[in-house]
Amino acid sequence: MLGPVNVAGIPYRTIWPEPDGTAVGVIDQTGLPHRFATVRLASSAEVARAIREMLVRGAPLIGAAAAYGLALALRSDCSDASLATAHAALLATRPTAVNLRWALDRVRRTVAPLPPPARAAAAWTEAGRIADADVASNRMLGEHGLGVLLPLAQSRPAGRPLQILTHCNAGWLATVDLGTALAPVYHAHDRGLPVHVWVDETRPRNQGAALTAWELGQHGVPHTLIADNAGGHLMQRGLVDVVIVGADRIAANGDVANKIGTYLKALAARDCGVPFYVAAPTSTIDPTCVTGAAITVEERDAREVTHIRGIDSSGQLVEVCLAPRATAAANPAFDITPARLVTALITEHGLFPATTAALRALDLAPPPPPQNAPNTP
Amino acid sequence: MLGPVNVAGIPYRTIWPEPDGTAVGVIDQTGLPHRFATVRLASSAEVARAIREMLVRGAPLIGAAAAYGLALALRSDCSDASLATAHAALLATRPTAVNLRWALDRVRRTVAPLPPPARAAAAWTEAGRIADADVASNRMLGEHGLGVLLPLAQSRPAGRPLQILTHCNAGWLATVDLGTALAPVYHAHDRGLPVHVWVDETRPRNQGAALTAWELGQHGVPHTLIADNAGGHLMQRGLVDVVIVGADRIAANGDVANKIGTYLKALAARDCGVPFYVAAPTSTIDPTCVTGAAITVEERDAREVTHIRGIDSSGQLVEVCLAPRATAAANPAFDITPARLVTALITEHGLFPATTAALRALDLAPPPPPQNAPNTP
Repeated sequence: MLGPVNVAGIPYRTIWPEPDGTAVGVIDQTGLPHRFATVRLASSAEVARAIREMLVRGAPLIGAAAAYGLALALRSDCSDASLATAHAALLATRPTAVNLRWALDRVRRTVAPLPPPARAAAAWTEAGRIADADVASNRMLGEHGLGVLLPLAQSRPAGRPLQILTHCNAGWLATVDLGTALAPVYHAHDRGLPVHVWVDETRPRNQGAALTAWELGQHGVPHTLIADNAGGHLMQRGLVDVVIVGADRIAANGDVANKIGTYLKALAARDCGVPFYVAAPTSTIDPTCVTGAAITVEERDAREVTHIRGIDSSGQLVEVCLAPRATAAANPAFDITPARLVTALITEHGLFPATTAALRALDLAPPPPPQNAPNTP
Repeated sequence: MLGPVNVAGIPYRTIWPEPDGTAVGVIDQTGLPHRFATVRLASSAEVARAIREMLVRGAPLIGAAAAYGLALALRSDCSDASLATAHAALLATRPTAVNLRWALDRVRRTVAPLPPPARAAAAWTEAGRIADADVASNRMLGEHGLGVLLPLAQSRPAGRPLQILTHCNAGWLATVDLGTALAPVYHAHDRGLPVHVWVDETRPRNQGAALTAWELGQHGVPHTLIADNAGGHLMQRGLVDVVIVGADRIAANGDVANKIGTYLKALAARDCGVPFYVAAPTSTIDPTCVTGAAITVEERDAREVTHIRGIDSSGQLVEVCLAPRATAAANPAFDITPARLVTALITEHGLFPATTAALRALDLAPPPPPQNAPNTP
């Protein structure tokens, strides 16, 4: 079974309750791959800032972080007004990932009926459950995804690893642990199946170059970094056996919102006969969203396109400008891959076609509140 | 008529014979957009280095530069052996652009029958003719391209400029002057047609962010820089009326080799019903290349993917590393867009469907050598 990911030999999740119960710890992903640092978030506002500025990112991790943020808000003020304010503030941090609303709603539903003094502890517990459930879900998702990879591996040319292309980061760092799109890859690698991952650098924020390459490297999974432009060419030349990406929101009809550029890879996969899978927990499915056209696509700061950070020859983290001064830039953060281009969705409950009928059959109703929640602060 | 492009008020071509006839001057494009500098190339080896290291780039400009390089080789040694050696060395600088071979063959064909002492001057003259012909060709190509843009502009929503997406740099800087894909854009802008260009940054070398944004800005053409990943999303949302790109080689069946990532934009254009044009002089068509599968795709240094140069906050040009240390990277520089995705080719002779029959009908035989070449050194 895939264990927790180690960083320099120490097992880490991306988010954890601090032992004193007054804060959550997270890995500051903005310094990766050059600097590994953790940050203590002691208030709802600090959590909101960490989500907005992408110290934590990835739809499942955003959900878990927001849940802890709501618990921290209730710790300082357990009133109905505080609950509503913090819920709204956290929800506004990123508009596209539906797991954010899902997790916030789940915590609110759990604590709203409780007497205010009991809310903070219950919210803290619920946030922990959301985090643990994400790990368990990813483990199951990885098993189902492995079931996709094994037959593909059997039909590949002898002596060649299974070639997987992924976009953005839907790995360990995008979730609480293990990852979504990369969970099947880690499972395969850990069981001795030779795999090789083409890592899209994923401009403009370079989550592929910075995060996916880093976490695959930490785990020893063979990989090669490519410009986002290169994936179609590699598929044309038969060098990609399967594409697996994550998702930020899946509409009721199976349309998938994911990192900008995903749609282009789905088109190339279709054109080249390469299977294209979307790996995501069912919490990413938004039954209230009829099609992808209804999904709000976040427009981020133009500076993410015109400037980039990296390490200079003396090891300093430096931001440089890539364009003529004052060049206007547009920066849509996500795009919508039509359901027709998706071979199947890989979820913790198994594989599903990206169709309205299949997704409707999934039970996406919220779970009933737990009856005897342990009160770990 | 579109005139020569000005830089800070001074008309420039990208390449020019130095007045003393012993060298060619070029703009060093590796410093753009941050530094405008010109370089004097006084030998065939210096020209070869300038092409290989992309001080000059763009298929038509590479052809003109190589022609001058061959003339410089003959100036120092006019023997048959020198002609053969320099031809081979210049041809080996970049494997994909067919204009390189076309220009070298044209100069060799002109000078080979001459007594060796007459060769250098004749080659110099022929290189000048190639450069002048490129400018004239681009002017005609721009007129034909304008004929494509005008009807599209008439059908756009009122009050909105014509939205053009381009990939890489097929503008003034990719040619001797005026450009290929951008020639129709400059024509349209100069005649008062409101246009707006979506500029793909074009990783890994960022020719869009560095060169296309710069030259459009110098000319005052409204434009917005985007990550390469964003173009599909913009097309899905109806924000692109037409895609125009250049080409490095066009196979006899109409398959197009162009900067890596072009294929992905062609797929998105097809999926979204956006016309996709390839603008190139007929010297880019390689009748000896039956399909795109026969085109050699240059694999460039991995460091172009893992490192990038830009201006830091103090105005210094700095190279930074974007990936974990020692990350492997692949860097194919071109991809092949199948002819079926190309709406039409825009050439100096007009529009042609990207089909074997249409390209065969074009007279691609080499022109007869000139009878009374003026002997300008």
